[in-house]
Amino acid sequence: MTDVSFADVPQPDEAARTEAVRRHAELLKPVSALGELEALGAWVAACQGSAPPRRFQRPRVIVFAGDHGIAAKGVSAYRPEVTGQLVDNLLKGAGPVAVAAAVADAGLRVVDIAVDGETPVAEYKVRAGSGSIDVEDALSEDEVRAALRAGMAIADAEVDEGADLLVAGSVGVGATTPAAVLVAALTGAEPVAVVGRGSGIDDNAWMRKTVAIRDALRRARAVLPDPVALLRTAGGADLAALTGFLAQAAVRRTPVLLDGLAVGAAALVAEELAPGARSWWQAAHRDAEPAHQMALDHLDLKPVVDLGIRLGDGTGAATALPLLITAARLLTDLPTHAEAGVTAPNA
Amino acid sequence: MTDVSFADVPQPDEAARTEAVRRHAELLKPVSALGELEALGAWVAACQGSAPPRRFQRPRVIVFAGDHGIAAKGVSAYRPEVTGQLVDNLLKGAGPVAVAAAVADAGLRVVDIAVDGETPVAEYKVRAGSGSIDVEDALSEDEVRAALRAGMAIADAEVDEGADLLVAGSVGVGATTPAAVLVAALTGAEPVAVVGRGSGIDDNAWMRKTVAIRDALRRARAVLPDPVALLRTAGGADLAALTGFLAQAAVRRTPVLLDGLAVGAAALVAEELAPGARSWWQAAHRDAEPAHQMALDHLDLKPVVDLGIRLGDGTGAATALPLLITAARLLTDLPTHAEAGVTAPNA
Repeated sequence: MTDVSFADVPQPDEAARTEAVRRHAELLKPVSALGELEALGAWVAACQGSAPPRRFQRPRVIVFAGDHGIAAKGVSAYRPEVTGQLVDNLLKGAGPVAVAAAVADAGLRVVDIAVDGETPVAEYKVRAGSGSIDVEDALSEDEVRAALRAGMAIADAEVDEGADLLVAGSVGVGATTPAAVLVAALTGAEPVAVVGRGSGIDDNAWMRKTVAIRDALRRARAVLPDPVALLRTAGGADLAALTGFLAQAAVRRTPVLLDGLAVGAAALVAEELAPGARSWWQAAHRDAEPAHQMALDHLDLKPVVDLGIRLGDGTGAATALPLLITAARLLTDLPTHAEAGVTAPNA
Repeated sequence: MTDVSFADVPQPDEAARTEAVRRHAELLKPVSALGELEALGAWVAACQGSAPPRRFQRPRVIVFAGDHGIAAKGVSAYRPEVTGQLVDNLLKGAGPVAVAAAVADAGLRVVDIAVDGETPVAEYKVRAGSGSIDVEDALSEDEVRAALRAGMAIADAEVDEGADLLVAGSVGVGATTPAAVLVAALTGAEPVAVVGRGSGIDDNAWMRKTVAIRDALRRARAVLPDPVALLRTAGGADLAALTGFLAQAAVRRTPVLLDGLAVGAAALVAEELAPGARSWWQAAHRDAEPAHQMALDHLDLKPVVDLGIRLGDGTGAATALPLLITAARLLTDLPTHAEAGVTAPNA
């Protein structure tokens, strides 16, 4: 067991959600005409405890970077040194999630949790690369706690600085391997059901990845049902930090848009550690990785868009972010029929 | 026949599309990781004849407003006078499409093609309300030509003023009835297959609407295969203007995001009048109206998002617009692996 614990997770304000739904029935549009945008807007109202919701003032995309020892086993199309290169580029605004965040007018922050090399964003760094989970633990007892606390601290800092919508992403060569293991461990799936093409691997790498998942899953199942032990044994520092971040965002009553497989896997663990946290999360997109859909199904979350994206850095979530903003703005900015002087339907 | 004709429709630049696809394979992301965003970006490149594409400078949402005599038969949840009320509100920035366009940073223009009442945007007005298509022609010979030319002139004016992306929408009580008739006439569907809940009608209105579609469809089938006669007999001035707009946008090599059923029906007719125009159109969303999906299938267009929206004013397309912008920006702004100094995959 561990000394990391989460306050009881509050739940979104159902009275605000109900008021949002009632308001939607009066707004200047045919009843229910906005489809899923109506439920999304009501979710924002519930998270804010305000119907209509306030405009988002400070949406933030946080990318958690970390290396994984398993990458040395050839489970990725990328060489391990690429993680640090990608972090360097993101800090210059170069990378898919940076482009999507810019279009969405969201701030971007990259945090080095476990990059195997030096970066200028190492304030929360836990170690240089996590262990190779097919043969060893990803982290020590102290490290898994430090990583969880790092994620919690990042969520606290963001919320304290005014973030009112968080998007989480992950950068790390090999990250889909431990993420798939976490999903398999928590949903009972078999290795071949959770293995995906990740960074675009060929058939040989796919076989190596499947073997790695199988071996790590055997180690992971030995420590179930302790979610912290699971992160320590078969996760990684970045995944543990994401877990702490997602759980603490819920504790801080701040809505989160979830991205791809790494974030989805961390969300599964976070819901185990902080039951009810999932009420504060919205799945942004359906990733092409098979384990991603399993994680969303397990969390009973339905993605907003399905674009065939296979990337975990937050790009899909940042791309879908304007839809969430529009959903909230419709609820806030539309007048009612009466306010607009328009004859109501079925009058 | 008619004297309205379209220049041969040019086709998007396949060399630019091919170059965009090639470029995507080198950009700083795993191969094919951006899913459908990659094809969308390549479509923008093909439309612009430039890979990478230029940033959109002036996206414009054009809402065509018109009344329909059939509305007096109780086929809508709204009373006929609501069309003019909605136009007045949109001109003040109040209405779903105005909110979505504002989030997408797109300009909004409302044009009165056939509102049954006075509006301040009547420059292109053809008549006050179109005929009740169950028993009479929607338009005269002169009027259908005037409406087509109005739409063409609006497209020309927008492109001449610098519009580089167009979104079309429709406001008009009862508009889904003639739109459903056009779809049924051009796809061979039966009335019960194309009738939808439109503005949120109850079962009695649904039966009246089905009867109206049946009667109008009988009149429409008598004039097939002439698309202009179809618009005259069973369409409406707003639908004819939309048709001219969509076809002329293609002639002017300007990409269009299609919205709901009215626009989809006009797109079907426009493709008949100006074959190949559909290459310049992208379906933004899948509307909940059944005839909308039939129109998209017939045009071989796949919607970007599926949000259960049932509204034709351009809201769905404006909501999806940021996704198209992101798709294009990813292609433009991402460096290649080599430019970024990142070891390429499978190196």
